Amino acid sequence: MNRYKLTIEYLGSNFCGWQRQKNSITVQEVLETAAKNFFQHNVVLFAAGRTDAGVHAEGQVAHLDTENKYDSERVLYGINFFLDKEVMGKDIRVKKVKKVSVSFNARFSAKKKIYRYNILNSHYKSPIFSYNTWWVSSSLNLEKMIKAAEILKGRHDFSSFRAKGCQAKSPIKTLDNIKITKRKSLIQLTFTAKSFLYNQVRIMVGTLKDVGNNLIEPDDLRYILTKKLRKFSGVTAPAKGLTLLKVLYK
Amino acid sequence: MNRYKLTIEYLGSNFCGWQRQKNSITVQEVLETAAKNFFQHNVVLFAAGRTDAGVHAEGQVAHLDTENKYDSERVLYGINFFLDKEVMGKDIRVKKVKKVSVSFNARFSAKKKIYRYNILNSHYKSPIFSYNTWWVSSSLNLEKMIKAAEILKGRHDFSSFRAKGCQAKSPIKTLDNIKITKRKSLIQLTFTAKSFLYNQVRIMVGTLKDVGNNLIEPDDLRYILTKKLRKFSGVTAPAKGLTLLKVLYK
Repeated sequence: MNRYKLTIEYLGSNFCGWQRQKNSITVQEVLETAAKNFFQHNVVLFAAGRTDAGVHAEGQVAHLDTENKYDSERVLYGINFFLDKEVMGKDIRVKKVKKVSVSFNARFSAKKKIYRYNILNSHYKSPIFSYNTWWVSSSLNLEKMIKAAEILKGRHDFSSFRAKGCQAKSPIKTLDNIKITKRKSLIQLTFTAKSFLYNQVRIMVGTLKDVGNNLIEPDDLRYILTKKLRKFSGVTAPAKGLTLLKVLYK
Repeated sequence: MNRYKLTIEYLGSNFCGWQRQKNSITVQEVLETAAKNFFQHNVVLFAAGRTDAGVHAEGQVAHLDTENKYDSERVLYGINFFLDKEVMGKDIRVKKVKKVSVSFNARFSAKKKIYRYNILNSHYKSPIFSYNTWWVSSSLNLEKMIKAAEILKGRHDFSSFRAKGCQAKSPIKTLDNIKITKRKSLIQLTFTAKSFLYNQVRIMVGTLKDVGNNLIEPDDLRYILTKKLRKFSGVTAPAKGLTLLKVLYK
């Protein structure tokens, strides 16, 4: 058996997320169909993380098994070739393929995941950049957001930042880093952790936006963490602003 | 009579360019309809430059005349409000409105226009960034492109970089600057001039790409300029990579 690691980019706008579903088009389904047409047998893809409907990926990682032994490059071009024949296949592209040992697992071997969230902080809603940004018209206080982000870093019970339906056994996670930068009207928030709770990044962004809007103070984040209830945090920021940037392995 | 200067952003992907046409949807038509609904009388927009089908704008400028005297801010929000009610109106946004004297003319008062062209130089076609980039898979030699661009700068007969149907009286133009930068796989070429010939920017980009691909040498640009024939230059780069960035006035 041969195992291949795929690094994948997709524009999530029109997909119902990564995971295969009945009656909705998903990244997994389109990609598995293309892979099946290339390998000439059924293929199952195991992804590092299931992204939600509307979320993009620049560096999703998935693995697949096959009896066929091909050059990595042939797998790359082969799957992309068949992607072009699928509905919405042009919204997905395999960036990189690597033959890996069968001990590699895209999900369980992942050491870190990096997500980026884009906020467009301008007085008008940009038509050019709206597809992957959350438009916030009121001027955000970046310094306060950075201060608040510092409080979220580290190991915490993130129950207040966990959406209904989260399947994680424990709400305790370690957030390695949040980096917040601004360039013109684009604010980018980059989150690094081994794993996240369901919607955790988007709820953190929604809460940090409240800080930027002076609705709450940076120190309130301590209080919100302590309460361990979803209702104390901010809104879930829209999916389209979120991109799974990278998955790191050993 | 009151004259207003509008700064406009649009995603050009689905428009047949700026200029009103029979049987095709254009930026001018959609914007004039929204303005008419706001002002409650017919409105004609005069733009700094007519962008082609598929070309985007971050800073198109146009002026309009009206008997109504409104705050600039009211005009801004009013037109955007009615844009939301038009087909494809969400792909256009008025960024700024300023009341100007009737001596101001968006086209004839323009001192400089700045266009930016995006090339995505990566081995795979990015689904996330393809809407406003030209995908070039072969690795481009940036140094050579910068050298070639130097030759295009200044006052020249640009006949070799002029498309059929160009209505300019003279092919002689002064190209103030070409700036070429690279950040990861994104190469950006920024062109500044008082005015350009029809498709001049896109033909220059197509030719500079040939230099980057080592098909021609930087010095060949001198020869191409001298020949004054379109067939000596490169292809017309795709419209979707081009953005009218800014129009400068006194």
